[in-house]
Amino acid sequence: MPKPNVRERIVNAGLETFHRRGFNGSGVQDVTDAARVPKGSFYNHFASKEALAVAALDRYWEHAGRALQLLRDESVEPAERLRRYFEQLAELMARWNYTKGCLIGNFGTELADQSVVLRERTASLLADWSRAIEHCVAQAQHAGTVRRDPDPATLAAFMVNSWEGAVLRAKVDKDDAALRQFLTVVFGAILT
Amino acid sequence: MPKPNVRERIVNAGLETFHRRGFNGSGVQDVTDAARVPKGSFYNHFASKEALAVAALDRYWEHAGRALQLLRDESVEPAERLRRYFEQLAELMARWNYTKGCLIGNFGTELADQSVVLRERTASLLADWSRAIEHCVAQAQHAGTVRRDPDPATLAAFMVNSWEGAVLRAKVDKDDAALRQFLTVVFGAILT
Repeated sequence: MPKPNVRERIVNAGLETFHRRGFNGSGVQDVTDAARVPKGSFYNHFASKEALAVAALDRYWEHAGRALQLLRDESVEPAERLRRYFEQLAELMARWNYTKGCLIGNFGTELADQSVVLRERTASLLADWSRAIEHCVAQAQHAGTVRRDPDPATLAAFMVNSWEGAVLRAKVDKDDAALRQFLTVVFGAILT
Repeated sequence: MPKPNVRERIVNAGLETFHRRGFNGSGVQDVTDAARVPKGSFYNHFASKEALAVAALDRYWEHAGRALQLLRDESVEPAERLRRYFEQLAELMARWNYTKGCLIGNFGTELADQSVVLRERTASLLADWSRAIEHCVAQAQHAGTVRRDPDPATLAAFMVNSWEGAVLRAKVDKDDAALRQFLTVVFGAILT
């Protein structure tokens, strides 16, 4: 396999560095060191650290978005698809030893008041994510396996936001308690 | 009234600066400028920016913790107390125009992997907060106004974490939709 080109190496290193240390906690030098490229090469590829952060966030979503395929598996009952989806995300957090958290939530928290472009990109990813969940919630409501009174858009956004809060708490507590509590309440009290 | 002393001014300025710009986005100079004290005076009062962050977080909790009194008002039905409590927090976010968010969540997201002392302090405040909610949830379950199957500790932690996620989404979207969705689902689907 060919080595990834310089831009690719910078995006991958940016994703890892921002995810571990945050945007303001990472300098361009940290990223180029991690990518093993000269610092001078950075500005051949990106106008700013902010521009790299957008590319890193899109790369993160490209990876994270793969799990969304579980939601489209029509051979599985829709409420069960939702459960498997969030259980898979919980396994990922365990593999990371409850470090890093969710890059979308991290950037949202850190940058919503500091960078228009990152606020807008974060908002748009959270909206896309909520819509993917909403489609599955609507199917489950139609199948009668999810309560019908909060509409699918409300329930879906609530689930996405609550998941972000659970991931934050798991990162702080360094254990899976918050993720298990999310699964217990969402799949025990809301979705039945 | 006497002017607050230098340490007090630094703590208040630190709270405001960290809340607006994050820990890594704020320098000691930013804080001493905001406090209108000489930069040199900082280290007479604090060993490090991290030590100030702990004091600022405690000051934040001192303010935020006042709303918890609503949860102890035994003249009000416990589920109604919980609703009033979260509605009051939502009003605070509106007054801030959906900027800043929750300092506990912000520090947790930004610093859980970077500062042992701030991770531990954040974890301990989230645990205190969850316990205050839990007491009210247990009363509401006893009164029969909240479903009994998730135990009070699970429901309370879920509510705190989901609230943090809703605040994050409101900060990103710059509107109250996520907070209203939280109230709809928690008080419509879980607590009835």
